[in-house]
Amino acid sequence: MALVQFMTPGLALFYGGLVRESSVITIMMQNFATMGLVTVLWFLFLYSMCFGETLEMFGNPATFAGFSGVGMHSEGPVSGIPHLLFAGYQGMFAVITPALMTGCFADRFRFGPYMAFVTLWMVLVYAPFCHWVWGGGWMSEWGVWDFAGGIVVHITAGFSALASLVVVGRRAVPDGMSPQDMDVPHNIPMVATGTAILWFGWFGFNGGSALASDGIAVAAAVNTEIAGSVACFVWMLVDWAINKKPTLVGKCVGAIAGLATVTPAAGFIQPWGAFVIGVVAALACYGLCELRKKLRVDDALDVWGVHGMGGFMGTCLLGLLADPAECGEGGAQPSWCVNPGTVTRSGEQFGKQVAAASICAVYSFVVTVVLLKVIGLVRPIVPTSEEQENMDRAMHGEQAHSPAKAYTATPDIKV
Amino acid sequence: MALVQFMTPGLALFYGGLVRESSVITIMMQNFATMGLVTVLWFLFLYSMCFGETLEMFGNPATFAGFSGVGMHSEGPVSGIPHLLFAGYQGMFAVITPALMTGCFADRFRFGPYMAFVTLWMVLVYAPFCHWVWGGGWMSEWGVWDFAGGIVVHITAGFSALASLVVVGRRAVPDGMSPQDMDVPHNIPMVATGTAILWFGWFGFNGGSALASDGIAVAAAVNTEIAGSVACFVWMLVDWAINKKPTLVGKCVGAIAGLATVTPAAGFIQPWGAFVIGVVAALACYGLCELRKKLRVDDALDVWGVHGMGGFMGTCLLGLLADPAECGEGGAQPSWCVNPGTVTRSGEQFGKQVAAASICAVYSFVVTVVLLKVIGLVRPIVPTSEEQENMDRAMHGEQAHSPAKAYTATPDIKV
Amino acid sequence: MALVQFMTPGLALFYGGLVRESSVITIMMQNFATMGLVTVLWFLFLYSMCFGETLEMFGNPATFAGFSGVGMHSEGPVSGIPHLLFAGYQGMFAVITPALMTGCFADRFRFGPYMAFVTLWMVLVYAPFCHWVWGGGWMSEWGVWDFAGGIVVHITAGFSALASLVVVGRRAVPDGMSPQDMDVPHNIPMVATGTAILWFGWFGFNGGSALASDGIAVAAAVNTEIAGSVACFVWMLVDWAINKKPTLVGKCVGAIAGLATVTPAAGFIQPWGAFVIGVVAALACYGLCELRKKLRVDDALDVWGVHGMGGFMGTCLLGLLADPAECGEGGAQPSWCVNPGTVTRSGEQFGKQVAAASICAVYSFVVTVVLLKVIGLVRPIVPTSEEQENMDRAMHGEQAHSPAKAYTATPDIKV
Repeated sequence: MALVQFMTPGLALFYGGLVRESSVITIMMQNFATMGLVTVLWFLFLYSMCFGETLEMFGNPATFAGFSGVGMHSEGPVSGIPHLLFAGYQGMFAVITPALMTGCFADRFRFGPYMAFVTLWMVLVYAPFCHWVWGGGWMSEWGVWDFAGGIVVHITAGFSALASLVVVGRRAVPDGMSPQDMDVPHNIPMVATGTAILWFGWFGFNGGSALASDGIAVAAAVNTEIAGSVACFVWMLVDWAINKKPTLVGKCVGAIAGLATVTPAAGFIQPWGAFVIGVVAALACYGLCELRKKLRVDDALDVWGVHGMGGFMGTCLLGLLADPAECGEGGAQPSWCVNPGTVTRSGEQFGKQVAAASICAVYSFVVTVVLLKVIGLVRPIVPTSEEQENMDRAMHGEQAHSPAKAYTATPDIKV
Repeated sequence: MALVQFMTPGLALFYGGLVRESSVITIMMQNFATMGLVTVLWFLFLYSMCFGETLEMFGNPATFAGFSGVGMHSEGPVSGIPHLLFAGYQGMFAVITPALMTGCFADRFRFGPYMAFVTLWMVLVYAPFCHWVWGGGWMSEWGVWDFAGGIVVHITAGFSALASLVVVGRRAVPDGMSPQDMDVPHNIPMVATGTAILWFGWFGFNGGSALASDGIAVAAAVNTEIAGSVACFVWMLVDWAINKKPTLVGKCVGAIAGLATVTPAAGFIQPWGAFVIGVVAALACYGLCELRKKLRVDDALDVWGVHGMGGFMGTCLLGLLADPAECGEGGAQPSWCVNPGTVTRSGEQFGKQVAAASICAVYSFVVTVVLLKVIGLVRPIVPTSEEQENMDRAMHGEQAHSPAKAYTATPDIKV
Repeated sequence: MALVQFMTPGLALFYGGLVRESSVITIMMQNFATMGLVTVLWFLFLYSMCFGETLEMFGNPATFAGFSGVGMHSEGPVSGIPHLLFAGYQGMFAVITPALMTGCFADRFRFGPYMAFVTLWMVLVYAPFCHWVWGGGWMSEWGVWDFAGGIVVHITAGFSALASLVVVGRRAVPDGMSPQDMDVPHNIPMVATGTAILWFGWFGFNGGSALASDGIAVAAAVNTEIAGSVACFVWMLVDWAINKKPTLVGKCVGAIAGLATVTPAAGFIQPWGAFVIGVVAALACYGLCELRKKLRVDDALDVWGVHGMGGFMGTCLLGLLADPAECGEGGAQPSWCVNPGTVTRSGEQFGKQVAAASICAVYSFVVTVVLLKVIGLVRPIVPTSEEQENMDRAMHGEQAHSPAKAYTATPDIKV
């Protein structure tokens, strides 16, 4: 739980390092704000909308409102896990998901409308899919699987992020800068630090999702490591082959792509499956990010190409890479089975996964566009071009770094 | 244990980001130095002064001197926990407590006297309260409770910090700067990174304090998350309402206030109690920090308002928010009881908690003033105003960042 | 496992902060690249070369190629630990070891030859010693002990680093700079952050190496904390006595020296032994680093003096500080025995440890020199002096920090 909590500030550093220096506070603030806001909502009614009783199609916000009935000595949805631990742990996933989107619309979202957007988005997009996939809703009844958030986290966030661009448009490019200049990270060591924290936390994200089943937690952790490593290695090779210079930022983005893609499948596949996912994630996400640039879609930090499509591919690939039929049968199973009896690879399973991922992508896109249009009617979302140039100082009255001090003489102090 | 160890450098980053660029090394060095110094003292005699046999009112420094008799296969004060683990884990609390004070007297303490101060303060302030509250001393016998360091950590440090200002006075404000300029953080992303590490470590701080009792550890961890999140959210709202611009630094300080305030109560209260504590911490600590500024008390990084008063309020609130009487009775208990049979909320308990917190506050304040006066007789504590302007270079011969390199042409290298 | 994974980026920050600003990306990239590359190799055949069947003297790369036969529900070399967890955990040690070397030849290694070097070095140096010491090879049969990587990690890396200088020589010193100027860290808070992450991860490194034996894991963790703290404290005192100003960088390097030195012995010694090791590590490593400077050996970040010699001393000291003979005997053992029946201190054990450490040092040195000479025949390793001045931009097309923005007026934005 602590590991996953650590991821949202890790994301803040990752994104904060990638943007221009004038927007660092703005994007970090958006990330930190979800920690406060979403935890408050989660406690009040959102947990209940995700894991409460089904009311029509959705979770009933009253079942566990204010964590009532969420005991620390009683079991929740998962046997062997205290209900309160389950609720707290799931809350961490709810916190990081909307934060993922901030990388897409960097520089183009006022803070006030952002808070309103996150609140409504959690209710209209996150909660339904969380309930449908993990909370006993129709997708889980239909047999769709998502180990640690391919659908619930990465597809919802990635496709909603893409949708936001329909409303917020491209960043204003100031005089004397080219669009390429806008993409130069202001602090690469900060990007690397954020990547390190995210990777570290991902062990809790994927490993913890096994929920007390030891062998599966081990598989999930090792698969996470393999997919992340393979993807960052392959991304580097592609970068090197195409641009002649392997970049550290590329290595970091590649790792995140591998980690996002393995997420839905981590506890269902063997290590060689994680290896395959790492290769696929690096090649496909690299290509998609290049395509995105060509089409001049201004997804500033490639949230759609990495998280949206990573989660999409991982969700689908799980249908092809999970244990084969022989693991699901009774009697003696081969020792290499990962998660016997839960999910079996098959054309049918693959079809279900593709369908669920597609429904999620379309739903997230459409609802987000409508939601932002409505919010935009109440209050303007996008700052003016002059404001975009000075986001941190204009909107939060802060500046990431004070100007460096010019030293002159130094007195010699007695320690 | 590793989590709590990680907190002291997290604090170093939090404080290091908040100060001026010329004092970064100084304050980080003070924090890192407590890791070395206090662990050495802890091993030699301090652990024994905290958890050894009671000798008159205090812990006997000889009982476990040099960790003698602290076995790794035998139990210590807590059944089920190896004695060596208990001693090592408690040592982490001892390390971070004096480090908390450094934020208050930033720029105004030479390193030599600081080392002497920490050594004596641990013996005269930390060890007595640790023994009295956690080591079986009179406060614990009287029925005072402190889950993870409201009295022992936050009140001792917060009120001693305030007391230090009696001796060290205000920072020298250089020509051309206003007192407000002195409070501009030199690196806000560093502040946010430090906050993230502290929050992450706090799970170990509060969760680990349950010492092997699983349900309670879960409650402590979830309460930690709720109080921190609610406090940072409420602090942001207040900041926004009053100053029109919500700040990232405010969010970070608010989170720390919530975390400090919930610390003494984390394993005794229900989630709604943590919610209440989060709201109270944000409103009260915000107000106290504003008051502190109005009174021109130069507690540079608000150690008293956040830790001292946060710990004070949390210690008292525990008397009102712990399990009610029905949980303490024999027979079937309601399933929502947190920590049945340890501490029961009542007017009497509240009174005891207020008394213990007040005694600790007064004791810490008085002893620290006397101690610093005595140290000041031996050696001057406060650097001159010119030295304060150049602390890092003058006192440690280091400079946080070397001047940025001006690039000209770049050769194209074959990778 | 997550803790140890976090160490390699921690090392990247530690080294990245210590170098000049023009080489930050280069050295961080070398560190991050080992995460991708070595994990890929580990999965494909390297794990098998370390822990597979013995073939002649070496591990058979085919036994567990592609993690075949490495089950998550079956046991591996250690009973009670799932084989896949063992393989994943050991992979983290394999990742960080070559990364340690990068601090030595900073600025002097092109990225392409570096990738080739790491690949071959893992096969020719790491895998043999890992197999011999931990994988059931001749050293373990002979009775040599290494708790968490004194020989396998620190001596191999430290002496190979030293050997690399035979081939790459000294850094080019640009006009107007002295050799001392080359050693000024560009970002000390980054060094401290890296140290913090390394220290934090070291608990997993040493604590996890106990592999499920609780009492020993506790001893290893507490010994890690004591040795690191004592060494950073003693280093500071020496620094203070000699240079009049204690430095934060010195504190950090001292801590790493203590942590490296206790590594081979952490799970075999009592806390007072860790205290002794901390003192010895600080004094000896400090002296060796000074000697290195006097001899003008350009080991830029003192990899040999800290890791190579730290690991060497710790490996030998284990022979003197492990449990005495009475712990190894049957019947009732004294309660202070750490690891009864594994390794007993004696002159003979000390001799074996010295012999093994020496063999490893000589082997690593010789093989690395030959290996680099061969690689140098295929492709030049060392960049020109002009290239060394601009490594990041020339080799990776990246710059750690974009130039700070000069702000003028700021519009007042409606939040």
